[in-house]
Amino acid sequence: MPSDAYGDLRKLAHEIGVLQGVDALLNWDQETYMPPAGAGVRAEQCSAIATLVHQLRTTPRVGELIAACEADPKLTGDPTSATARNIREMRRSYDKATKLPTSLVAELAKVGSQAQEAWKDARAKNDFPAFAPWLEKMLALTRQKAECYGVPKGGELYDALLDEYEPDARAAEIEAVFKPLGDRLSTLVKTLLEKGKAPSDAPLHCKIPAERQHAFGNFVIEALGFDTKAGRLDVTTHPFCSGLSTGDTRLTTRYRDEKFTDALYGTMHECGHGLYEQGLPKGDHLGEPLGDSISLGIHESQSRMWENFVGRSREFWQWALPHAQKTLGSGLEKFGVDELYGATNTVQRSFIRVEADEATYNLHVMLRFGIERALVAGTLAVKDLPGVWNERFEKLLGVKVPDDRRGCLQDVHWSFGLIGYFPTYTLGNLYAAQFWEKINADIPGLKAGMARGEFAPLLSWLRDKIHVHGKRFRAGELCERITGKPLSADPLMRHLESKLKPLYGV
Amino acid sequence: MPSDAYGDLRKLAHEIGVLQGVDALLNWDQETYMPPAGAGVRAEQCSAIATLVHQLRTTPRVGELIAACEADPKLTGDPTSATARNIREMRRSYDKATKLPTSLVAELAKVGSQAQEAWKDARAKNDFPAFAPWLEKMLALTRQKAECYGVPKGGELYDALLDEYEPDARAAEIEAVFKPLGDRLSTLVKTLLEKGKAPSDAPLHCKIPAERQHAFGNFVIEALGFDTKAGRLDVTTHPFCSGLSTGDTRLTTRYRDEKFTDALYGTMHECGHGLYEQGLPKGDHLGEPLGDSISLGIHESQSRMWENFVGRSREFWQWALPHAQKTLGSGLEKFGVDELYGATNTVQRSFIRVEADEATYNLHVMLRFGIERALVAGTLAVKDLPGVWNERFEKLLGVKVPDDRRGCLQDVHWSFGLIGYFPTYTLGNLYAAQFWEKINADIPGLKAGMARGEFAPLLSWLRDKIHVHGKRFRAGELCERITGKPLSADPLMRHLESKLKPLYGV
Repeated sequence: MPSDAYGDLRKLAHEIGVLQGVDALLNWDQETYMPPAGAGVRAEQCSAIATLVHQLRTTPRVGELIAACEADPKLTGDPTSATARNIREMRRSYDKATKLPTSLVAELAKVGSQAQEAWKDARAKNDFPAFAPWLEKMLALTRQKAECYGVPKGGELYDALLDEYEPDARAAEIEAVFKPLGDRLSTLVKTLLEKGKAPSDAPLHCKIPAERQHAFGNFVIEALGFDTKAGRLDVTTHPFCSGLSTGDTRLTTRYRDEKFTDALYGTMHECGHGLYEQGLPKGDHLGEPLGDSISLGIHESQSRMWENFVGRSREFWQWALPHAQKTLGSGLEKFGVDELYGATNTVQRSFIRVEADEATYNLHVMLRFGIERALVAGTLAVKDLPGVWNERFEKLLGVKVPDDRRGCLQDVHWSFGLIGYFPTYTLGNLYAAQFWEKINADIPGLKAGMARGEFAPLLSWLRDKIHVHGKRFRAGELCERITGKPLSADPLMRHLESKLKPLYGV
Repeated sequence: MPSDAYGDLRKLAHEIGVLQGVDALLNWDQETYMPPAGAGVRAEQCSAIATLVHQLRTTPRVGELIAACEADPKLTGDPTSATARNIREMRRSYDKATKLPTSLVAELAKVGSQAQEAWKDARAKNDFPAFAPWLEKMLALTRQKAECYGVPKGGELYDALLDEYEPDARAAEIEAVFKPLGDRLSTLVKTLLEKGKAPSDAPLHCKIPAERQHAFGNFVIEALGFDTKAGRLDVTTHPFCSGLSTGDTRLTTRYRDEKFTDALYGTMHECGHGLYEQGLPKGDHLGEPLGDSISLGIHESQSRMWENFVGRSREFWQWALPHAQKTLGSGLEKFGVDELYGATNTVQRSFIRVEADEATYNLHVMLRFGIERALVAGTLAVKDLPGVWNERFEKLLGVKVPDDRRGCLQDVHWSFGLIGYFPTYTLGNLYAAQFWEKINADIPGLKAGMARGEFAPLLSWLRDKIHVHGKRFRAGELCERITGKPLSADPLMRHLESKLKPLYGV
């Protein structure tokens, strides 16, 4: 083995990172600008690049280099050092990747790209039966993937998928947190809606053209600290953020004339992801764990923090409202800060997850978690999905789903094979709340500054405590390191109750 | 050898075609939406994909399969059959590709991507010295490429480059056509400008916002037959068309408030390229010569036909003006068809090639042809480029170049290493004129139909005679096949004289 095994390993990781950015561009373009007739070859392109990336990730040389690094005490002597952690995560990633046959990776990429087009179409036409065969295919391929990974000790097949997005997490443990959280949230929602008085949502009825919303969205993300020389904002059906590569982070959003805050908070949400991506040290560590995010739960903690803890605060509107009135017009001039603060914190039994308020949002996630777990376990068949979705939805949220477009067809995830992904949304909310309490303790003038449009102290705290470390820490470890405590549902419940009860007068 | 060598060869060609589309997307995105800070990794991405494509194109298995096909009389017995021609062109392409070392291909892609960013910057800042070292590098790499190809018999080093864009063309032969054409054009321009009276260009002074121009551009290209389900129109610094892949053809244009016809004709020009790309049988023949265009000269004949022979005709304005007035507004309502026809056919000694009128356009091309030929021959140094450009420009067009932005920095080509490309623009004009005479003989009611917005007969003629054949015929062969004559400058001169002299009253 050459003495510079680590250097060689990093070089290979960089090459892989370069190609992963190509894959990300193919996907971003498919969602934003690709004309529909391009879908056929696009599926082949995604498959070709995914295959290539997989081949590079699993080449025996990578395994040899990792082993050589592991055996070198200069590199791994201190197991908590950045280098040792980089090597640990490379090992984890290599061991996982080598369990998947190349043919399966190629098939997942190709069918995923096709199924995504089928989903777009089915969603537009509210036609679940048209999507069902594609979901069957993706579910079968995803189960095959889970079986290649193998059931983790004491776990279930679903955990093998979950582990890709939230390393070491287990469905049973998540269930144990979700169940009581769900009960507390249901009680809170019931109290607010049945005993309280909802703030008026009148400001949200202003009709605002998409171009003005786009201009305002760009203004806000720049104010939050998003570097538009190293990123951009575009329009899609399903908002997302893609950290394509070093210096290239793409956000997407969608506009409707009414309820301009749906797009605004969608944009701020993706911006939160984007700020994390821009803060990761990709310049030095592209393709390495040290240049990558910790987990989807931590990623989501960033997006939800900027969307909810910042964006739905009274202080945010103190700063934002005059700018919004100037840029958006359309009658918004009639409303004051308290009215915007109230309107953007109303709680509703609504159908669309990405537009749900903070209190009901996690109920939407729990529904999906239960359903996808059952799909993977084989206790729920794809053909029964709409019925079960609608039934459970009514039980959880107390309203009848009017159609599949606003029901089980609303999310893109399953069409891509992203199963085991949804619970990370609620984990993200929990992490965000727990970090937020610590941030406010660390930065006493934070909220007062926000009211003046000063977001740099928050961003630099996040950069320093989270972003700059890449994947050096696991999510649970990071949480303990920052807050001194394991993850708990209490901070989120404190946040929601202390904000919503006064607004609803209960 | 397996009996299905041809099938295997086609499969490999398809795989290469799929990846070439990825490369095209990387380039398209760099020109349209990529944030500036993404340029560093983008260069590496372009290089990685170009390397991969080159490796696949030059793998010995391709050579073996081609040889097996060549030896099979069922495939090549009739040398003019589509299959035999497909194999002939695959041989040509393989022999050329195997002459280039992979390292050079990677370097050309990487430095080209970087040099393109440097060019954008230098052009914006009018700073030739900042671009000069990049041009030096690209010129050196391009000369290296030419040397790998080798000087064709009886030719010069420049011919090795030219041959990539216009198979079998020779600089000396082109010079022999260009010289007298240049003289005739100079005489015509002199006559018009010194003895004639220019039509008023008043309609072009209407100030029209970019969004309305974009809406009108989209309306026009759809009317011409461009399938927007299989393509789209975006905005860039330097307009281009990229046939990314099957069902995915991208056009770009640029807008200014004044002279809306610059963007309109730019869009129609790229649309002409796009109609060719959409008409190529890529569904069956992606990656094969039969799914590819003949040459850049033929490609340009398509773009210039729609731009000039259609777009600058009186009949076009008969149809387009009412729509333009409705969509563009801004005072255009005051003008009639004759005024638009006149205004879009004024001849001017101007600086920007892509905005030049039909009569002076080829003089701009001849300038570049002479200069790049001297750069490759080594008789002109990069540092002397601006001076020589400005001197020759004044001699050819009779006006002094005010700055390099409007001089030698205006075109993107050289930054990409596209040397040997410019003369194909004038070849395109010549082919377009010669085809146009034949089309009008074949379709007697063509012009009358255009005045009613009927462009389908023209498109279906082009599809039938040119597009559907892919690379089956060489350019000269196609010209003889269609018009019964070799390429001549006469049809272009007839077209220009018969249109411009009456307009100028000479």
